[in-house]
Amino acid sequence: MSFIKYLECTNTKCNNTEDIHKIQNQCTKCSYPLFVRYHLDKIRSNYTKGTAIDFKLNSLWRYKLLLPVIDDKFIVTLGEGMTPLIACTNLHGNFQLHAEQKLWVKDESQNPTSTFKCRGSSVAMSKVKELGIESIVIPTNGNAGSAWACYGAKSQTQVNIYTPKDATFMAKQESILFGAQVVLVDGLISDCSKMVQKHLELNPKCFDVSTLREPYRLEGKKTMGLEIWEQMNGCLPNVIVYPTGGGVGLIGIYKAFQELLELGWVDSCKMPKFISVQSEGCCPLIEAYERGDSKCTFFNGASTIATGMRVPRSLGDFLLLDIIRQTNGAFITVTEQEIIEMHSLAPKKEGLFMCYEGASALAAIQKAKSLGHIQDSDKDIVVINTGSGLKNKLEYLID
Amino acid sequence: MSFIKYLECTNTKCNNTEDIHKIQNQCTKCSYPLFVRYHLDKIRSNYTKGTAIDFKLNSLWRYKLLLPVIDDKFIVTLGEGMTPLIACTNLHGNFQLHAEQKLWVKDESQNPTSTFKCRGSSVAMSKVKELGIESIVIPTNGNAGSAWACYGAKSQTQVNIYTPKDATFMAKQESILFGAQVVLVDGLISDCSKMVQKHLELNPKCFDVSTLREPYRLEGKKTMGLEIWEQMNGCLPNVIVYPTGGGVGLIGIYKAFQELLELGWVDSCKMPKFISVQSEGCCPLIEAYERGDSKCTFFNGASTIATGMRVPRSLGDFLLLDIIRQTNGAFITVTEQEIIEMHSLAPKKEGLFMCYEGASALAAIQKAKSLGHIQDSDKDIVVINTGSGLKNKLEYLID
Repeated sequence: MSFIKYLECTNTKCNNTEDIHKIQNQCTKCSYPLFVRYHLDKIRSNYTKGTAIDFKLNSLWRYKLLLPVIDDKFIVTLGEGMTPLIACTNLHGNFQLHAEQKLWVKDESQNPTSTFKCRGSSVAMSKVKELGIESIVIPTNGNAGSAWACYGAKSQTQVNIYTPKDATFMAKQESILFGAQVVLVDGLISDCSKMVQKHLELNPKCFDVSTLREPYRLEGKKTMGLEIWEQMNGCLPNVIVYPTGGGVGLIGIYKAFQELLELGWVDSCKMPKFISVQSEGCCPLIEAYERGDSKCTFFNGASTIATGMRVPRSLGDFLLLDIIRQTNGAFITVTEQEIIEMHSLAPKKEGLFMCYEGASALAAIQKAKSLGHIQDSDKDIVVINTGSGLKNKLEYLID
Repeated sequence: MSFIKYLECTNTKCNNTEDIHKIQNQCTKCSYPLFVRYHLDKIRSNYTKGTAIDFKLNSLWRYKLLLPVIDDKFIVTLGEGMTPLIACTNLHGNFQLHAEQKLWVKDESQNPTSTFKCRGSSVAMSKVKELGIESIVIPTNGNAGSAWACYGAKSQTQVNIYTPKDATFMAKQESILFGAQVVLVDGLISDCSKMVQKHLELNPKCFDVSTLREPYRLEGKKTMGLEIWEQMNGCLPNVIVYPTGGGVGLIGIYKAFQELLELGWVDSCKMPKFISVQSEGCCPLIEAYERGDSKCTFFNGASTIATGMRVPRSLGDFLLLDIIRQTNGAFITVTEQEIIEMHSLAPKKEGLFMCYEGASALAAIQKAKSLGHIQDSDKDIVVINTGSGLKNKLEYLID
C-alpha cells in the first residue's frame, strides 16, 4: 500500500497543497512543480526499515510505501530498478583515491530500456493508469521518450513524442518500435516543449508528462536513492556525482534521502554532498551558481556529445541550485574531450560500457578532487551511470 | 561457500571424474564435456530452500552454494542475473492462450552487456581467476565474445576473440572497447573454432573457453533455472521455450531443475517440457531428432537473422536431444519472416524490445500450441529472451 498524503507546491512562498485523486500538473496557484508528500509519521509508527521493504519484489516496487500508486492493480512493470552498485577498484589509481575510499557506480544501464528513464516511466505510467488517463505527451532528448513509449506499449496507453531530429538513433528507433507517435523537431528540447504546448491545446485530455510538469516521474527516479541506501546497508554515501540535464534524478535521490532521514532510518550518516556535472557545451547551472542566482538563464548554443545533458534550462533549476548549496556540494563542468576519454577508459578498466552522460560524471571525479570537493575523508563516492553506451550516437564510436 | 565435489564426464559410458583444483577442459579420457557436480547431500542436510539463498546478494551470486567458485575473493561481478520474469498478458490473444494460462518472458536483456552471456562469463571468469589462468580464447557469434571481453576488463584478464566478420556490429564494437584482441574471420563460428585451435597450439597456457569445452560457463547459465524456480515461489513452470544456438542455456536450466529436484526443494511440480527453437535457416537439431539420431550432422549453408542461433553443429547436441526426449518436449523451427514479425510485435504489445533470438522463441509458441506441444493444462509457459534488440544488426531495423 501507499502512504501518499498530498501534492505540495515546491515554491516555499506558496505552500499550496493539491488533491492526490485529481489529475494535476503544476501548482494551480503559482505554476511551480508539485512534490508528492507521504504520511511519514504513519510509516514510522507502523514499520521499521527492516519491514518497510517488500524484499520479494526484485524491482523498485519493493518501496511501494513511499510510492504514489494506491492500488497495485495499476502497476505497470517490466522489472525496472534494483540495478547494481558496482565497486570500481581498477580506476582508483587514475583518480589517486586512497585505499580506504570506495568508488561505486550505480549502473542504470541494467534497466528495461537500458537507461534510468524507466524508473520514472514505470511509476508515472502506473499513476497515469490509476488516474484514468488515456494519452500522454512528452518532449524528450531521446531516452525518456523511448522509456515512455515502452511503458505505453505495456499498458496500451497512447504516447506522443516530440524529439530533436538529431536525437540518438536508437532512442528514436525504439520509440517507433514501441508504437509511439514520434514527431522529429528541427531544434532543441526547448523547441520540442513549445510543440508539446500546441499539442495540448489541440488535445486537452492528453496528459503532459514533461520533466517536473507532473509530480510522479520524480517519485520513480527517487528509488535510485532508496536503493543506494539499501545497498549501503542503511547508510548514505559521502558524495553523489550526477550527470545533469533536467536534473530530476538528482532531485529524486535527494528527496529519497530526505524522507529516509525524516523516517530516522539512516545509520551513522548525514546527507551526502551532491556534485552536479554538466558539459562545457551546456552548463547553465554552474553559471547561475557562480552568479549567486537561484535560477538559470537560457544557455545559448547548447551542444554536447552527451545529448541527455543538452538541456539549455531546466524547470527544476532552482531546486538543483538549492540542493548543491544546502549540501555543500558543487557544480563541475567537463570538456567533450574528457567525456570521450572516460567513455573509452571505463570499459577497459571496469567492464563498464557507459553512456556519455555516465562517462561525464565519472570524468568529473578527478576535477572534483583537485578542487577540494572530494576529500580524503569522503569514504564512499557514488557515481550515477544513467544508461548504456549501446544507446549512444554510433558515429562517435571507434572504427 | 561452494559445495563443489568433482567434474564428471557427460559420456555415460565413460563416467570419469576429474579434480576440481586442476585446470580442465573436456574429459581427459574421452573428450566429452565435463559437468560440475556438487555435494547435494551435504547441502540438503545443512540448508533449506529458505536458507540456501543469500538474499542480500541481488545477483546470480546469491546461489553460491551451487556455483563452482570456492573463495569469494575471486568473484568477478557486475551485478549479472536476477533478471525479471515478466507476465505477458497482452499477447494472450495472439496465441489463443486461455485465461488461466500464464505466458512469462525471462528478460535477459537486463544484464551487464544486455544479454544472458554475462552469466556464463561472470561465473567462468571467476573460476578462471581462482585457477590462476591469465589469458583465455573464444570463438563467438558476437555476444559471448563481448561478455567475455567485459569480464576480462573487470578482472584484467587477457581475452582473445575469433568472430565471423559479419557478426553483429555492436558485439564487435563492445569487444574492442573492452580491450579484447579481436580477430575477424571470413566464415562461420565453426571456422572460428578451427582458428582457436591454432591459437592454442601457439599459446599453450591460454585457456579455451569455447562452448562446453570447459565446465564453468554452464554453471553460470544454470542460474537462469535457479531464478525461475525462486521467482515462481519454489515451483517449476510447465514449459520452457528456448532459442537454441549452442544450447548451453537450455542444458543449464535443465541441470538447475535436476539439482533442485534432487535436493527435494521443488513444490508440487515436475520437470517441465523443454521446447528448443531454431530457425529454418539453421536447424541441425530437429533434423537429428526426426532421424532418431543422438547427434547432429553439420548443417550446411547455415543462415539466419538471429545470428546467435547460427550454429551449424553444437558440441552439446547429444545433451540437447536427450533433454527434449526425456522431458517429452519438442524441437520447433520458425521462419525468418516469423522471427521478424514477432520482433516487431513484442515491443508494441508488451514493451519488449527483444533480440531476434528471443523473438524466435516467442514466435514458436503458436506453432508449439497447434502441434500439441503446449496444451491447455500447461499453466505456466516461460520463454527465454536471451538479450536486447539493441544488439541486433541495425540494417534489419525499421526505417
